[in-house]
Amino acid sequence: MPYVNIRITREDATAEQKRALIAGVTELLQRTLGKNPATTVVTIDEVELDNWGIGGLPVREHRAALAAKDAPR
Amino acid sequence: MPYVNIRITREDATAEQKRALIAGVTELLQRTLGKNPATTVVTIDEVELDNWGIGGLPVREHRAALAAKDAPR
Amino acid sequence: MPYVNIRITREDATAEQKRALIAGVTELLQRTLGKNPATTVVTIDEVELDNWGIGGLPVREHRAALAAKDAPR
Amino acid sequence: MPYVNIRITREDATAEQKRALIAGVTELLQRTLGKNPATTVVTIDEVELDNWGIGGLPVREHRAALAAKDAPR
Amino acid sequence: MPYVNIRITREDATAEQKRALIAGVTELLQRTLGKNPATTVVTIDEVELDNWGIGGLPVREHRAALAAKDAPR
Amino acid sequence: MPYVNIRITREDATAEQKRALIAGVTELLQRTLGKNPATTVVTIDEVELDNWGIGGLPVREHRAALAAKDAPR
Repeated sequence: MPYVNIRITREDATAEQKRALIAGVTELLQRTLGKNPATTVVTIDEVELDNWGIGGLPVREHRAALAAKDAPR
Repeated sequence: MPYVNIRITREDATAEQKRALIAGVTELLQRTLGKNPATTVVTIDEVELDNWGIGGLPVREHRAALAAKDAPR
Repeated sequence: MPYVNIRITREDATAEQKRALIAGVTELLQRTLGKNPATTVVTIDEVELDNWGIGGLPVREHRAALAAKDAPR
Repeated sequence: MPYVNIRITREDATAEQKRALIAGVTELLQRTLGKNPATTVVTIDEVELDNWGIGGLPVREHRAALAAKDAPR
Repeated sequence: MPYVNIRITREDATAEQKRALIAGVTELLQRTLGKNPATTVVTIDEVELDNWGIGGLPVREHRAALAAKDAPR
Repeated sequence: MPYVNIRITREDATAEQKRALIAGVTELLQRTLGKNPATTVVTIDEVELDNWGIGGLPVREHRAALAAKDAPR
């Protein structure tokens, strides 16, 4: 009877990939805790890049900052 | 002062139906727990069918599987 | 197949009241949108008073401020 | 390592405003609780006006009712 | 950078089982979508049985109803 | 009318610190987006350390791994 909410940035995840997430999480809950797959609900929220922050920055800027830091000088 | 989040699959719920959900939940909380309607907040999330899983399957496939099982032979 | 999360302050809601919330929300979704009660999931989160804010104040202070304002002089 | 979810009505918040929310919340958690900005995640959900209720009404109607009440006679 | 929230009924899940959920979900997101495990956050909410409803009933009653139905006569 | 949910690990945050979070987030939403503090709701969820994962590990193990890595040899 679990409920799982997966939140990711909206970046072209395919229906097939979402299908794999749903199947994988449901299987994990059955294997780990014996939860009944029939009543396991999974929702996936795809969040716009402008609406996701990490390190105090929108994710796009955060990635750009990481890339700049890792670049060879 | 309650906060209620209703998550449903995105399938053409009308503004009038959402209005009924908001009114109904708010009234239920007032009647059951004496909560003040003025500060009761309700949000409705409509989730794409590909992003909702049950029984380890995206909901569309889950429904098709149920329909096939129930069909007369 | 809806999922509903009800968040209220933790203030001695009884099992019977929570039962009424679960039944009422499930019935509302069936009546309004034709949702199947068998797969409607409802969770209730009871949040400590210190952890709930409104009007920029923890809810206890907010209530005290309202009460002071409404008191006869 | 905190996770913050900010839900607002969808009403033309700009990328710059969302940037300010992300920066501000992350800074607040660092200042108040010493939380590491590097692992603070913030998501912003913009909810359609029809899907947000307060006072038992969709927010647009709620605002119209407030405006009518405040109008001079 | 995903955020995953797993909600289950509070029924003696062990620290080891929760560890398996955290590891399993993180690995699934890496394998399926290439998400970086270092910034994948997982939270597990254990919800009291009285606070979890399905089929319009608190989960304990729902299970009792199912058991009665399945019992041999 | 915003709703903000702040999730942190349960580690002795004081009522005064939570008060500062509530005040700070409410003020941020007013300053950045002009949101009315009177109807801004903030909830704080304190999650047990065993129930919070990052980097594929429960947070306590994750911190221990980081500390070991950073330790002088």
